Amino acid sequence: MNLVILFPEDFIDKDTVVLKGRRAKHAQSVLHAREGDTIRVGILNGLMGHGRVTGSDADSITMTVQCDIIPPNPLPVTLICAMQRPKTMRKILQVAASMGVKHIIIIECWKVEKSYWNSPLLTAENIREELLLGLEQGKDTVMPKVELKRRFKPFAEDELPDLAENTFALIAHPDAAAPCPHCLEGEAVIAIGPEGGFTDYEVSQFVNAGFSPVYLGERVVRSEFAVAALIGKVT
Amino acid sequence: MNLVILFPEDFIDKDTVVLKGRRAKHAQSVLHAREGDTIRVGILNGLMGHGRVTGSDADSITMTVQCDIIPPNPLPVTLICAMQRPKTMRKILQVAASMGVKHIIIIECWKVEKSYWNSPLLTAENIREELLLGLEQGKDTVMPKVELKRRFKPFAEDELPDLAENTFALIAHPDAAAPCPHCLEGEAVIAIGPEGGFTDYEVSQFVNAGFSPVYLGERVVRSEFAVAALIGKVT
Repeated sequence: MNLVILFPEDFIDKDTVVLKGRRAKHAQSVLHAREGDTIRVGILNGLMGHGRVTGSDADSITMTVQCDIIPPNPLPVTLICAMQRPKTMRKILQVAASMGVKHIIIIECWKVEKSYWNSPLLTAENIREELLLGLEQGKDTVMPKVELKRRFKPFAEDELPDLAENTFALIAHPDAAAPCPHCLEGEAVIAIGPEGGFTDYEVSQFVNAGFSPVYLGERVVRSEFAVAALIGKVT
Repeated sequence: MNLVILFPEDFIDKDTVVLKGRRAKHAQSVLHAREGDTIRVGILNGLMGHGRVTGSDADSITMTVQCDIIPPNPLPVTLICAMQRPKTMRKILQVAASMGVKHIIIIECWKVEKSYWNSPLLTAENIREELLLGLEQGKDTVMPKVELKRRFKPFAEDELPDLAENTFALIAHPDAAAPCPHCLEGEAVIAIGPEGGFTDYEVSQFVNAGFSPVYLGERVVRSEFAVAALIGKVT
């Protein structure tokens, strides 16, 4: 946790917060924050700064906070990601949030194992928890937007063309003829397939909407690392 | 496991192998390989191809193999990585191997927690297991070389200058003035610090040896994802 994120309900007055639960425990046992110490904090969707610890007991920590630092710029990348096995999806949400992606669209594809959609990860609350871990890691306060699209065809026909418009729209596909381009000057949209890959039909739907198929390298990389490597390339 | 790696001791004759243990179990229960099926195999440090299952019982699987595909080219990247907490180091070994890195140097730094060096991960056998998982993921057979350098100063003074010679030698450092360059045409050496970062002295030693400090982005990314993103940038 490189940044402790503060919520409106943490504030007991204009500049005093009381943390409980995971964040208090982390501040105490990992950051070893004691009275008088300062730790990095940020207000959810707001400014970042420091908190000075004024009190600490078994299950809470009290801080006086001062926040006047603007969070880093959003990364100009939208991530479209086929639903993955929940453990992998969790890591993807975290890494995308930590790298500054602000729009993540999780989609149905033919080769997505249907049971994955029943995962408790996909509740709004649990998605938010994973994104928070990413923001805490990346030192950012701006919560990404996550959308779930459980029907491929209407998403592809009705929404993909708009997403591709005026962006570098890329679909990662091992059989692509072109390597992933580097260091794009503008907004990018990157689409990542399920474990078994996109079907030919799905690739054609992306292509029809304006996406270019690109490959990442000569090797098959786990999805969460492919996300990091692709973001590394395009930004 | 996208490729089952075969060892000399698996062969019972020129083109017949018997697998036991983890690989047999994986082939049976994850790949659902039954008699007559073919699965992708590769000979350690050798050619890749296919194995046709000719027998399968409770704890072994027998295949006739044919290997005539050259493994992918080594990635022109050497990774120098400060020792990390073992769970993270394991992931870094896997992702580096899966992306095609063939030379990994794990080094001591001031901010490396000393107990990490006592981790059982660092036995030759356990390092090899992690690298194998990476090769199986990346569909490659060529085992990377891993070196452990438990004293920073002699490594920096005696070995870093040679590593930097005729390469793009980069040290990832959040305070660097320049962003990580993209798409290098030649060999790269990338150095990654410990969780708390390199000290100023360590950075200066790298710089003296010919390394350029570069930053990855505006945010702090977990080491294993930083490795993937940096490799994505330079290759």
